[in-house]
Amino acid sequence: MDPTLYVILDRVAARGRDLDEILAATLEGGCRMVQLREKEWPSGRLLPLAERLGGRCRRAGVTFIVNDRVDLAVAVGADGVHLGQDDLPPRAARPLLRPGMILGRSTHTLVQATRARDEAVDYVAVGSMFETATKPDFELAGPDLLRRIRPLTPLPLVGIGGITHANVGDVIRAGADGVAVISAVCGAPDPAAATRRLLAAIREARDLTARTRRL
Amino acid sequence: MDPTLYVILDRVAARGRDLDEILAATLEGGCRMVQLREKEWPSGRLLPLAERLGGRCRRAGVTFIVNDRVDLAVAVGADGVHLGQDDLPPRAARPLLRPGMILGRSTHTLVQATRARDEAVDYVAVGSMFETATKPDFELAGPDLLRRIRPLTPLPLVGIGGITHANVGDVIRAGADGVAVISAVCGAPDPAAATRRLLAAIREARDLTARTRRL
Repeated sequence: MDPTLYVILDRVAARGRDLDEILAATLEGGCRMVQLREKEWPSGRLLPLAERLGGRCRRAGVTFIVNDRVDLAVAVGADGVHLGQDDLPPRAARPLLRPGMILGRSTHTLVQATRARDEAVDYVAVGSMFETATKPDFELAGPDLLRRIRPLTPLPLVGIGGITHANVGDVIRAGADGVAVISAVCGAPDPAAATRRLLAAIREARDLTARTRRL
Repeated sequence: MDPTLYVILDRVAARGRDLDEILAATLEGGCRMVQLREKEWPSGRLLPLAERLGGRCRRAGVTFIVNDRVDLAVAVGADGVHLGQDDLPPRAARPLLRPGMILGRSTHTLVQATRARDEAVDYVAVGSMFETATKPDFELAGPDLLRRIRPLTPLPLVGIGGITHANVGDVIRAGADGVAVISAVCGAPDPAAATRRLLAAIREARDLTARTRRL
């Protein structure tokens, strides 16, 4: 699992564009972790799409995560499942997963992040970092929340919410191991170029952080 | 599994009344099989309700089925899951179930019912029997569809859709092993009395069918 740039594929954010094509583009751009997020379609309709996107990730050696639906994640052989605060809690979801499957959790407060750590999740998403229209359960936390969570856990921390190539540096410098984006790739005119630009900005911030630590 | 009277608990059909109380009443009235059907709540919110209703059924020795969400069904230790035509197909759902769990399937046509039989489901729901406002995916099939499916499978057949104590006899005489109801119990002023009245009408129709066969 390499959460450096965790691209969330969302049909609504893609505004009618084909998720298969966006996936192909972001993989070409260097993304190594992908999530399928679909809040409206019934699972029977979602199944063939999830199988197709998951298959493409598997062939590319890229981690494929399904949002919310644990049953769908297991059914399509995904690498893991991502659970929001309204989804099944990890204690209920973990026994349903195959051994080695990844369980990620969204958190918006210090209390939620501490609880996620104690529930033995595999990574913690922290958000929202910035203002965003994509998430209806939006709670502005800012990079400062990440900075406060960082000393409490060695788990991979992923910043989420309103992240662009212009502000991703703040999130990395706050201690994130990676960032999750929806609109910044799904809504970009050129998702491959957007992926490359985000990765370049992340690497730059990491280099700067490493150099600062050495000084 | 006794699908004679299969009561579906649905928050919308209950119009604000407590599902715990409706469950207690229908069990008191003699119902032996229950389904929890919730199309709107996220699974994290549904989990405690499903655990509570499932626990009550278990203590009463009554079969408890969860609609649609295979993960939730397994998580709460339900006896089975019911899958509509838009939900995960049985081939994808079966491997997720614990051994011995019941898998039921909604069907609205002869083709769907034949397919369900070939997918090794444990019971087949056939509907809609009559006009109803509860199901948005309503397709009027009538007791005649049940009559045509009956010779094709020994699986338990459950009529569903618009069934009341006044018309349940037609469904039983068409070959149903039982009937599933939503409004007839969830929407009844006295769910225990409604359950008893439905069961009496089913028994009467069964006796009549048996007597006719003997003549």
